Amino acid sequence: MTSETVFGHSQALLDMRDRLREFVDREAIPREHAELAHDVEKLDHVARLLREKAKAAGLYAPQLPTSHGGLGLSWKERAVILEEAGRSFLGPLAINCAPPDQPNMINLMLHGTAEQRARYLEPLIRGDIRSCFAMTEPAPGAGSDPSMLKTTARRKPGGWIIDGRKWFISGAVGAAFAIVLAQTDAGATMFIVEAGNPGYRVLRNIASIDGFQIGGHGEIEFAGCEVNDDAVLGEIGKGFAYAQQRLEPARISHCMRFIGRASRAMSIAQTYANTRTSFGSPLADLQQIQAMVADSHIDLHASRLMTWHAAAKMDAGESVKHESAMTKVFVSEAVCRVADRAAQIMGALGMSEDTPVSLILRELRPFRIYDGASELHRATLARRILREDLRP
Amino acid sequence: MTSETVFGHSQALLDMRDRLREFVDREAIPREHAELAHDVEKLDHVARLLREKAKAAGLYAPQLPTSHGGLGLSWKERAVILEEAGRSFLGPLAINCAPPDQPNMINLMLHGTAEQRARYLEPLIRGDIRSCFAMTEPAPGAGSDPSMLKTTARRKPGGWIIDGRKWFISGAVGAAFAIVLAQTDAGATMFIVEAGNPGYRVLRNIASIDGFQIGGHGEIEFAGCEVNDDAVLGEIGKGFAYAQQRLEPARISHCMRFIGRASRAMSIAQTYANTRTSFGSPLADLQQIQAMVADSHIDLHASRLMTWHAAAKMDAGESVKHESAMTKVFVSEAVCRVADRAAQIMGALGMSEDTPVSLILRELRPFRIYDGASELHRATLARRILREDLRP
Amino acid sequence: MTSETVFGHSQALLDMRDRLREFVDREAIPREHAELAHDVEKLDHVARLLREKAKAAGLYAPQLPTSHGGLGLSWKERAVILEEAGRSFLGPLAINCAPPDQPNMINLMLHGTAEQRARYLEPLIRGDIRSCFAMTEPAPGAGSDPSMLKTTARRKPGGWIIDGRKWFISGAVGAAFAIVLAQTDAGATMFIVEAGNPGYRVLRNIASIDGFQIGGHGEIEFAGCEVNDDAVLGEIGKGFAYAQQRLEPARISHCMRFIGRASRAMSIAQTYANTRTSFGSPLADLQQIQAMVADSHIDLHASRLMTWHAAAKMDAGESVKHESAMTKVFVSEAVCRVADRAAQIMGALGMSEDTPVSLILRELRPFRIYDGASELHRATLARRILREDLRP
Amino acid sequence: MTSETVFGHSQALLDMRDRLREFVDREAIPREHAELAHDVEKLDHVARLLREKAKAAGLYAPQLPTSHGGLGLSWKERAVILEEAGRSFLGPLAINCAPPDQPNMINLMLHGTAEQRARYLEPLIRGDIRSCFAMTEPAPGAGSDPSMLKTTARRKPGGWIIDGRKWFISGAVGAAFAIVLAQTDAGATMFIVEAGNPGYRVLRNIASIDGFQIGGHGEIEFAGCEVNDDAVLGEIGKGFAYAQQRLEPARISHCMRFIGRASRAMSIAQTYANTRTSFGSPLADLQQIQAMVADSHIDLHASRLMTWHAAAKMDAGESVKHESAMTKVFVSEAVCRVADRAAQIMGALGMSEDTPVSLILRELRPFRIYDGASELHRATLARRILREDLRP
Repeated sequence: MTSETVFGHSQALLDMRDRLREFVDREAIPREHAELAHDVEKLDHVARLLREKAKAAGLYAPQLPTSHGGLGLSWKERAVILEEAGRSFLGPLAINCAPPDQPNMINLMLHGTAEQRARYLEPLIRGDIRSCFAMTEPAPGAGSDPSMLKTTARRKPGGWIIDGRKWFISGAVGAAFAIVLAQTDAGATMFIVEAGNPGYRVLRNIASIDGFQIGGHGEIEFAGCEVNDDAVLGEIGKGFAYAQQRLEPARISHCMRFIGRASRAMSIAQTYANTRTSFGSPLADLQQIQAMVADSHIDLHASRLMTWHAAAKMDAGESVKHESAMTKVFVSEAVCRVADRAAQIMGALGMSEDTPVSLILRELRPFRIYDGASELHRATLARRILREDLRP
Repeated sequence: MTSETVFGHSQALLDMRDRLREFVDREAIPREHAELAHDVEKLDHVARLLREKAKAAGLYAPQLPTSHGGLGLSWKERAVILEEAGRSFLGPLAINCAPPDQPNMINLMLHGTAEQRARYLEPLIRGDIRSCFAMTEPAPGAGSDPSMLKTTARRKPGGWIIDGRKWFISGAVGAAFAIVLAQTDAGATMFIVEAGNPGYRVLRNIASIDGFQIGGHGEIEFAGCEVNDDAVLGEIGKGFAYAQQRLEPARISHCMRFIGRASRAMSIAQTYANTRTSFGSPLADLQQIQAMVADSHIDLHASRLMTWHAAAKMDAGESVKHESAMTKVFVSEAVCRVADRAAQIMGALGMSEDTPVSLILRELRPFRIYDGASELHRATLARRILREDLRP
Repeated sequence: MTSETVFGHSQALLDMRDRLREFVDREAIPREHAELAHDVEKLDHVARLLREKAKAAGLYAPQLPTSHGGLGLSWKERAVILEEAGRSFLGPLAINCAPPDQPNMINLMLHGTAEQRARYLEPLIRGDIRSCFAMTEPAPGAGSDPSMLKTTARRKPGGWIIDGRKWFISGAVGAAFAIVLAQTDAGATMFIVEAGNPGYRVLRNIASIDGFQIGGHGEIEFAGCEVNDDAVLGEIGKGFAYAQQRLEPARISHCMRFIGRASRAMSIAQTYANTRTSFGSPLADLQQIQAMVADSHIDLHASRLMTWHAAAKMDAGESVKHESAMTKVFVSEAVCRVADRAAQIMGALGMSEDTPVSLILRELRPFRIYDGASELHRATLARRILREDLRP
Repeated sequence: MTSETVFGHSQALLDMRDRLREFVDREAIPREHAELAHDVEKLDHVARLLREKAKAAGLYAPQLPTSHGGLGLSWKERAVILEEAGRSFLGPLAINCAPPDQPNMINLMLHGTAEQRARYLEPLIRGDIRSCFAMTEPAPGAGSDPSMLKTTARRKPGGWIIDGRKWFISGAVGAAFAIVLAQTDAGATMFIVEAGNPGYRVLRNIASIDGFQIGGHGEIEFAGCEVNDDAVLGEIGKGFAYAQQRLEPARISHCMRFIGRASRAMSIAQTYANTRTSFGSPLADLQQIQAMVADSHIDLHASRLMTWHAAAKMDAGESVKHESAMTKVFVSEAVCRVADRAAQIMGALGMSEDTPVSLILRELRPFRIYDGASELHRATLARRILREDLRP
């Protein structure tokens, strides 16, 4: 409902959004099945199919420059498109704008050599492969505090030997390569490691609350994993800086997609409230139901405005360090509230998997933790505010 | 902290805001005393003084067209200026953009005859007088449901006789005239009644939680109150329609001013947290304090964006019926949370009147009720959403 | 931490609790696996094993009278024991005090004929079989409003023919019989239907958010399901009255078990906070973590007192209609908050199934809906309060 | 509504409670006026009158041993009586069980010499005088961290010279004496200083949000304030230990009184909801109103149980260090929620002083700060929980 015209969205963009909406309703949503997310083969099949259809429909890769076959949308435009795609867990996959591939493309475009771009970026853009980003480690390694990085890369003649363990690596199952963050004696560095490398092993898919995560959350072991010098992505020692470059855009992109997901859950609940009768009147007539509906619209309205505002600042080249943190905290908690209310309105049906609502509720919960837990962002925000005496 | 540039605010406007900030800090804030609000004579004195200074500083009447001696600001621009003025409870008064005079000017400009405009609007614009808007009635009369209007206006030759009782009429104490809503046999109608009319009596100032309300909340009796035909404002029977015209702008304007007030409370709390030490460390180092600071910045960021967005829609001539209700609910609750946290951070000092924080906390509380209680807005929003199946 | 001595719990009971704690830690918790809940065969095996051990340990059937081989505990005593058992999802099963068998035993004991008791109650008490309670129906049938009952039982010579569909029937998968609520021309009536009846079919296990539910949530079809007259439980037409008899005890028993489950989640989180380090200090030193821990203890303390108080009233033979509703609303929401905080404290690990925390979080969520949604209870409570002007 | 019988309250106590209820309704409530709290003379007059009536009614000094003319009630019994008295801000005053006199009596009874008891305790018990407790200091002195104590007492021959400033000293206006906490070279020590002492000056009554505080919140200056050796209360150096002795009982007693106050606010709101009509139906029929009513009953039910439980532990001689902190945090926040909902239900009337609801709302707010802010208690509770690994 939030007015796009005030935010300067063109009619062409709104038309694209409407086509995407129709595409998602027709192609993505009917193919949704919870088990798909973890069945690499079936998923691969669906992904290829959807991507071909998205290409044909002119909806593919909205975030990429036209020179790379994308739609070349600004951040402000992407906000509208990604929300729309995000209504289905297959939507961002279909238009190839899903994490971790999306931020991996950013790192590869900015820092990849011509050869790296040809070998990894191009098939990623075409949608032929998936990838993952191996940063987080099990305790006592790098979790919310990346400086605790325990995975190491030691020099050997002509290359490096990587040792360590990564954990909760989204999309790892079935990924063709990983961008790995490892400690060298010259600082944290990014490496590209292919899935076929004998020193690279996806130990397991960590069972988790968010059933819809494509490629699951892998635990990966690097055991004497040898790579050549050309596996280094960008400059040695710049690993943390590069990780930062992807984090803010990734957070805001997540907000876009998850606003779409929460909006869909509430749409389903609204239809239910309009049709289900209890104690002689439709649920829609009950004020407690009404309050949940109104609060959800308010939550999503505020979420959109914060996300769009941050997007507009990114387009203007301004820093969004502060706003992206405020937005991530608010949106991650708001979409959980919305999905929780949707489930509550629907009663037992909202707890079942007969509708996607309970799966959306589960899928959104980790967003309050991933990409920086709310508590971490609050502390960081407030320390900056208090130190610089920022105006409330 | 919310970026004004993204919202297209010009540098000229930001300069005006900075001058106003300095003006409020130098002229308004040092003159704040809680008792001032109810001491008509002292307040009159201060108001005249401040208004002369505001005129001299080129900061007077931002909401009025230049043809009426105002600054001719758009709604989007006003959002920035009114927030700034709203940091002090004397700020909007100083620039003559405080309710109920502000919406009264709207009604008079839109519907007043040339004579009414000369007699009531001109001195109001100059700041020579104050006015009030007499709509609400004690139970069982018109409260949140205006259709329960009990005050009547009966025809008499050449005029009308008004009978009834009004209640919680903000600004009534010391008002030169009231715009009164009364039921006629042709529907609800607005009348202008002067304070000197023998049938008009301000019975009392209703003691209330919000000590800072200028002119208090009056209880007014109309007992055989005779007015001439020229007391009718606009057309007979259009009273409810005219009341609607002022309500949405009034709500959004309130949001602007109260964001300023809450921001000031948190500013004071931030300074306190940076300087007060407890158990060996500054309060600013404690995460529970930090969380309250961060949440307040997030609340105000979202509040500003919702308010600015509604303002931009009003500038574009679009309806904000839906957005103004969502914004009013969110902002009224958000500013209360912010002021509550500010008071909590400051401990016993936050409970005292040694700083304005506790007075701001009290002043903001009724905004969750005035201009439509949150519960009423939630029900109205949701019924529209569910009836029209609006997308979440 | 809540003092049992104040509530008059005997030392013998506290000793029993300590033995049960040890039993649960040693026998039940190590056997917990999410998949167990839906694998009827494996579960059967584990259940038999645990029940033999519980019998040997003198911990079996605390709720049953000693004449039926139980421990004969009062409600106040059960509160302590069921919480302890409830720490593991296998605990209540092990001591044969899990729903829906527990309330089914109540109905059978109160209203069963000697033959029904021999055929159904005795093996249930021994733990040889499981059962279910088939009341809820899919829309537009009986959900939170049982008067919408659509399943019918028509008379035939010497028996009845049951037709209808039941939905979200906990424990249906693998149940040996169901107590079914069906409409007759003499009012709603309870029938006992055996799983082998050709007219009885468990269509599917409804996939749901709460993975730990033993026997899942079945959808059951009754298609021309013929039963003899001796399948009627109690009197014809008393179905709703009998359902009420089980509901209040069932709610309070749920509270007991789920307090145990939430307590366990927070225990795990406390251990994590004491050992996991981030940004140079243990999580336990961070005030935001501390606030989550403190609030959880407060939530559980209040939950226990409300539950114990209702239990004590039941022991005294007083009605707990009002208190059981207040307790159910508070406890169902409190345990969800506690589990949510536990998961949040643990970060990504809290989202995984590497610990039971995320599974507990999912298992507790439906309690805000099952046994009467919070909204329904709030409305019912308030209408009684306002009608009878009950003192706040 | 909470069942007293389960908590073992005798019929005699419940009869006393009923008589007190009738007494408060007839004698205290009709005499309530906000201005009374700060008008020492008028208050004195009303207090004397009410106390005589309370003595005559056999309701005086429930907390004192019968040997001191009190009713000798246990803590568990007091919980019922103090809640009842606490419905009116004049109730605890009338039965002489209001702070700071009540905890001052505790200190005097435990540590006063025979002379001190005759000179200070006896007239206090009779209700002839009021007193205050001077501990808190303005920044950077002793606030929530008492170790920052800046007021000093230096030895002089035969006595002491006290210098310092105290702040937010409840009841200071019109107090006949103060128990003062001051630092000596042998540690913090309590002194009794009479109001007539030339070195003792109540500088002002600090205007504060809680208009109903009897004797206001004084700022007191000790300037070369000379006292004799017999002004020392108890042993030198034991000031902090004695302060602790009064704090836990004081917190729990506050909970009792404020539960009564919140209950009264909600009673008024219930009556309003039952009679006020809006949009064609009584407010009582609206689910959003119902939800506020139900949640308030749940909040007060939990508050009572936590308070009664702590009281029962105190009667049993068990430590309530942990429970009193949990109870204080919960109750202080719960009663604020209840009063806020009561005000919201009543709309503009709830903001006015035409009913006591808005004054109760203001009076309860500081309880989240006084006697240890919620944040402080949460941190202290959690550190103990995590350090000792207390079970949740």
